[in-house]
Amino acid sequence: MSESFDAVDIIRTKRDRGELSPEQIAWVIDAYTREVVADEQMAALAMAILLNGMDRREIGDWTSAMIASGERMDFSSLSRPTADKHSTGGVGDKITLPLAPLVAACGVAVPQLSGRGLGHTGGTLDKLEAIPGWRAALSNEQMLDQLEDVGAVICAAGSGLAPADKRLYALRDVTGTVEAIPLIASSIMSKKIAEGTGTLVLDVKVGSGAFMKTQEDARELAETMVALGQDAGVHTVALLTDMSTPLGLTAGNGVEVAESVEVLAGGGPQDVVDLTVALAREMLEGAGVTDVDPADALADGRAMDVWRRMIEAQGGDPDAPMPEAKESQEVLADADGVLTRLDALAVGVAAWRLGAGRARKEDPVQAAAGVVMHAKPGDEVRKGQPLLTLHTDEAQRLGRATEALEGAWAIGTAYQVETADSIVIDRVS
Amino acid sequence: MSESFDAVDIIRTKRDRGELSPEQIAWVIDAYTREVVADEQMAALAMAILLNGMDRREIGDWTSAMIASGERMDFSSLSRPTADKHSTGGVGDKITLPLAPLVAACGVAVPQLSGRGLGHTGGTLDKLEAIPGWRAALSNEQMLDQLEDVGAVICAAGSGLAPADKRLYALRDVTGTVEAIPLIASSIMSKKIAEGTGTLVLDVKVGSGAFMKTQEDARELAETMVALGQDAGVHTVALLTDMSTPLGLTAGNGVEVAESVEVLAGGGPQDVVDLTVALAREMLEGAGVTDVDPADALADGRAMDVWRRMIEAQGGDPDAPMPEAKESQEVLADADGVLTRLDALAVGVAAWRLGAGRARKEDPVQAAAGVVMHAKPGDEVRKGQPLLTLHTDEAQRLGRATEALEGAWAIGTAYQVETADSIVIDRVS
Repeated sequence: MSESFDAVDIIRTKRDRGELSPEQIAWVIDAYTREVVADEQMAALAMAILLNGMDRREIGDWTSAMIASGERMDFSSLSRPTADKHSTGGVGDKITLPLAPLVAACGVAVPQLSGRGLGHTGGTLDKLEAIPGWRAALSNEQMLDQLEDVGAVICAAGSGLAPADKRLYALRDVTGTVEAIPLIASSIMSKKIAEGTGTLVLDVKVGSGAFMKTQEDARELAETMVALGQDAGVHTVALLTDMSTPLGLTAGNGVEVAESVEVLAGGGPQDVVDLTVALAREMLEGAGVTDVDPADALADGRAMDVWRRMIEAQGGDPDAPMPEAKESQEVLADADGVLTRLDALAVGVAAWRLGAGRARKEDPVQAAAGVVMHAKPGDEVRKGQPLLTLHTDEAQRLGRATEALEGAWAIGTAYQVETADSIVIDRVS
Repeated sequence: MSESFDAVDIIRTKRDRGELSPEQIAWVIDAYTREVVADEQMAALAMAILLNGMDRREIGDWTSAMIASGERMDFSSLSRPTADKHSTGGVGDKITLPLAPLVAACGVAVPQLSGRGLGHTGGTLDKLEAIPGWRAALSNEQMLDQLEDVGAVICAAGSGLAPADKRLYALRDVTGTVEAIPLIASSIMSKKIAEGTGTLVLDVKVGSGAFMKTQEDARELAETMVALGQDAGVHTVALLTDMSTPLGLTAGNGVEVAESVEVLAGGGPQDVVDLTVALAREMLEGAGVTDVDPADALADGRAMDVWRRMIEAQGGDPDAPMPEAKESQEVLADADGVLTRLDALAVGVAAWRLGAGRARKEDPVQAAAGVVMHAKPGDEVRKGQPLLTLHTDEAQRLGRATEALEGAWAIGTAYQVETADSIVIDRVS
């Protein structure tokens, strides 16, 4: 590519509310990957984008340029259609665990490239690593073989997909430029489009425990991502889902695996079941499979069979008990009444402080750390009854985790319960 | 200083249009100087400041923090009051050369710390270095001795004044964040306040050849700087002056020294004389000297005497002829009429391309390169008469310099002349 562009000109264009041309965008992303454009220049450009925005055409070009920075995967050799799900991140969000085997059990292959957690939202790979023996790293060939054989794979994304995004994401994290919808949308979609799935269902979370605090922002992000996917030839749908209170009754690693297995066994909390089935329906419909009801495949054990084979294929023992934490502490209800509120962000921060998450990329996580909830908003509680149990391997973590939960829950009358009518708030397609 | 602040929080505060506290500003400048805050973080903050602004209190704190990053000079031991001038930079702006000796000749000491040129505006030190033997570097002691003895010194600023500004200026240059009035004002004023002058007169240029293209922007910059100076106890006044056409009839290094000597000899172009005298009056008045007319000191040779002693004190030969360029080329008038326009920016770029300026800090400049004008807007010209002569040591530079001048001048009727009525447009105090 010719060096006929100048980084300062490009920064100035966006600073002055101008539109970046396709050529400018392709150059700046490529030059940033080659370290011709410096971190401080990209930081200034990211802040200008955050404050002045990009239009749909620019976001599309930005996404294409990030895809072009690396390799693309190809699942066209598979005998089945493919569908993938991406969640923008929430507290207690273990949905990928039952969802991938469920969709595979219905005849659609699920190539789920996942990440690790950073901050108060957990990471799917961290959760699965609570299973003794399970490994996240697969070669592209192993991944293809497992998709053909088992139908579902959840593994770490290789470093070859959208490397520009990796560098830019780390930069945004330290420069206060994470919260830019054009950059969030292109970051997610560049990886998902490069991954090569045929259908993509986006779970865009809204509420205190989510990145997007308002429905307005969540809808804008969802619309932007759906347009990017469709422009790239990927069948893309987004559900806006509630994240004001945690999903299910667990937030952590091993505790979320155990709850996912309950769901696969036909039980588990209703909100987790509802969201898993809703997302499965979208993935199947997008992949053209309309004659199977995923609720049946969950109830009759077909999804559980795929789960066991999927875990075994990656070295895990599906029958191994989850590790138990060395220390635990209960949080008790201080009145009789109805639990009217249980804040997702506070529970997420508590689980994180207990050791379930990491503050820096290189930190380890504890498999057994986390929060188990004994009531959800709307449930009756009695004074002295345990509301939550905190688990950790290090007793000194209990104090700061308890602090995070101060003011995070309330007991009142049923009339005051603050929850969405349904876990799915809206659909964007 | 405690590390109780977080760079990302500070960036987010300004990004979200918040006000930075005095403590946040003091911390971020100090931490940037100590390289605890990274270039990419300061770049994101600079862009947020450019787009979201800072109020007067924040700009004052920012300036104080930059002053606190280095040493302060002290001229209180001198037997005379001190006054200094700063120009925001223009084309053909050699005013410092006659002005410093003129003001000294009237009884006020002038400690003029100057810079080198970058881009199309020239640098005072580059101009003086065209004089054989003259040296820009003086120790603080040499500077004080010369101020006491001669009354005027023009030299390079040491690296100890506002080092945070040096690092930030270089960063702004590559991140499209130069054009932020709060950052321009605090950059200039931190150095001038740290320098310790009693009176400061600011020459804020307006027009095509200046940094500020509109009177509105120039006035905002002038008001911001005057307020900063006054808050710091420096008597500060700003003049808004015209920079739509070059100052005088020369733009370069040696050619501007020669023109300055003409002014000191009582001649020279009227606009250069007018601006020199206007700025001298402000400097003298600020320093409390009201019984001397600088126009007299220019006419009767007293300023020339100080000039000769000032050049000699720094090793220069005031009688040495200016170097002559190896190559020259004339630009001819293409019609009879009146020169209605001669664009400052175009002449500045041409002089720069001829070798009078530098593209990067480490580049050398040519002492003899530059543009000599044979007519100014309002002058009658005849077809075939030379309008400009271009000088350079390298013939291959003539082509691109000539290109810069395309469309830069126009010949019409006196009625169409585009110039300000007076070189001084407004005064801010």
